[in-house]
Amino acid sequence: MKEKISIFKIGGSLIDSIEERALFIEGFAKLSGKKLLIHGGGKIATRLSQSMGIEVKMHQGRRITSKESLDVVTMSYAGLVNKSLVAELHALNCDALGLCGADAKLILAKKREPLEGVDYGYVGDPYEVRTKFLHVLFQEGLTPVIAPLSLEAAKGQLLNTNADTVTNAIALGLTKHYDIDVFYVFDKPGVLTDSEDDQSVVPNMTRKEFDEMKKNGALHTGILPKLSNALNLAENSESRVFLCEANAALELANGKFAISTQISS
Amino acid sequence: MKEKISIFKIGGSLIDSIEERALFIEGFAKLSGKKLLIHGGGKIATRLSQSMGIEVKMHQGRRITSKESLDVVTMSYAGLVNKSLVAELHALNCDALGLCGADAKLILAKKREPLEGVDYGYVGDPYEVRTKFLHVLFQEGLTPVIAPLSLEAAKGQLLNTNADTVTNAIALGLTKHYDIDVFYVFDKPGVLTDSEDDQSVVPNMTRKEFDEMKKNGALHTGILPKLSNALNLAENSESRVFLCEANAALELANGKFAISTQISS
Repeated sequence: MKEKISIFKIGGSLIDSIEERALFIEGFAKLSGKKLLIHGGGKIATRLSQSMGIEVKMHQGRRITSKESLDVVTMSYAGLVNKSLVAELHALNCDALGLCGADAKLILAKKREPLEGVDYGYVGDPYEVRTKFLHVLFQEGLTPVIAPLSLEAAKGQLLNTNADTVTNAIALGLTKHYDIDVFYVFDKPGVLTDSEDDQSVVPNMTRKEFDEMKKNGALHTGILPKLSNALNLAENSESRVFLCEANAALELANGKFAISTQISS
Repeated sequence: MKEKISIFKIGGSLIDSIEERALFIEGFAKLSGKKLLIHGGGKIATRLSQSMGIEVKMHQGRRITSKESLDVVTMSYAGLVNKSLVAELHALNCDALGLCGADAKLILAKKREPLEGVDYGYVGDPYEVRTKFLHVLFQEGLTPVIAPLSLEAAKGQLLNTNADTVTNAIALGLTKHYDIDVFYVFDKPGVLTDSEDDQSVVPNMTRKEFDEMKKNGALHTGILPKLSNALNLAENSESRVFLCEANAALELANGKFAISTQISS
């Protein structure tokens, strides 16, 4: 039987809320077994860009990454957010280690070619995860905390990478050797059939249901990349994949019941 | 016989100069054997502070670190500078891993108490280095690249730490198990008896010579903490300790002769 790893992806709204973040970090630190945290941090990057007078360009919910924006993302994700999370975890006796995809060539990627006339700039699409190094860290009892940057190794180029995509790539990399639960934590209790009603959670979602809801316009544009990643992961691994709130993710990781959308192949 | 490790500390002026930095990184990447890089990055932090409208306070060449300044230092040192160096090294086939002192509790420190009426803010004085984790990285063939932040673990507090002091702490931590050369790289060929004359390098310096030169006012204020650290290291370890330019450091690490000031006990 393969050993279990719980992978959590947390995003901007959780990171920005002092109380919710502290509660999550406490629960995460207490979780027994191997675990891994992947974080975004978009709002901090946006605020930093504004204070530096750098224009933030978005296209369909994705950041267009100029050279200046890449520096901002590197500073805020791999610097401030990553190291603050690591420090907070140590205070709770969780032996955390912060990394980005460039460290030890953890996440190798290709710079994205312009797509339908849109040049996303310094954005990476991961093609390889160095899972061997993650094994070493787990053996040492360390908990990796990963900032969503990847590396174009031949050019020594850092690349901004969607944190959901990074989560997907890492889970796929680890799935051969570990039994994996993946929690895409966001600010809703799951995928909703009625975006105004938090009770309308879709408990299970397959590609078929995704396609139907997408066709009917029942899914927010913002959730499409997240669901695409989650579906891709469920279809290409034996991972259990959930979209849910932070509390629910911790409950589920502890083997309890909690409201969520579980994504299945 | 103990295995050798070459430890390089590079500072702001080298990091800021595109050409010199590229040359150094190339030489460092090519060095055979185990090696470790510690970097500052003060000018980038100062520019970032300015663009964000945060006042930079210095006292005797040392930054006073407010909460906002700590964020800037974390972003620029552990984020931009650290991850850029790591990416550049990978392009040269050097398997680099970026860390700060909070990662895996690498550098534990105490927040400095106000000293002679000066409160340095979020500044750490290291008291322990987790050398065991560095061994693991070396065994994996990785080259650690370390940003000068330390951790007050109980509080989960990041602390800004002088990069020379970090170098000292790491070298002292590793000295039991490795044969260590330490290169404090700066923009002079060594300690000069005449600051206007680059030919006036002091080839060897002990505590006695340091005290005499300090008494005679022959040493710049800026070099005092660096020399203090270097002397402390030479006196408390079997390390060979050098102050020199980047090229000279690489030559010396390659077993060749180069102009430098060697610090001895």
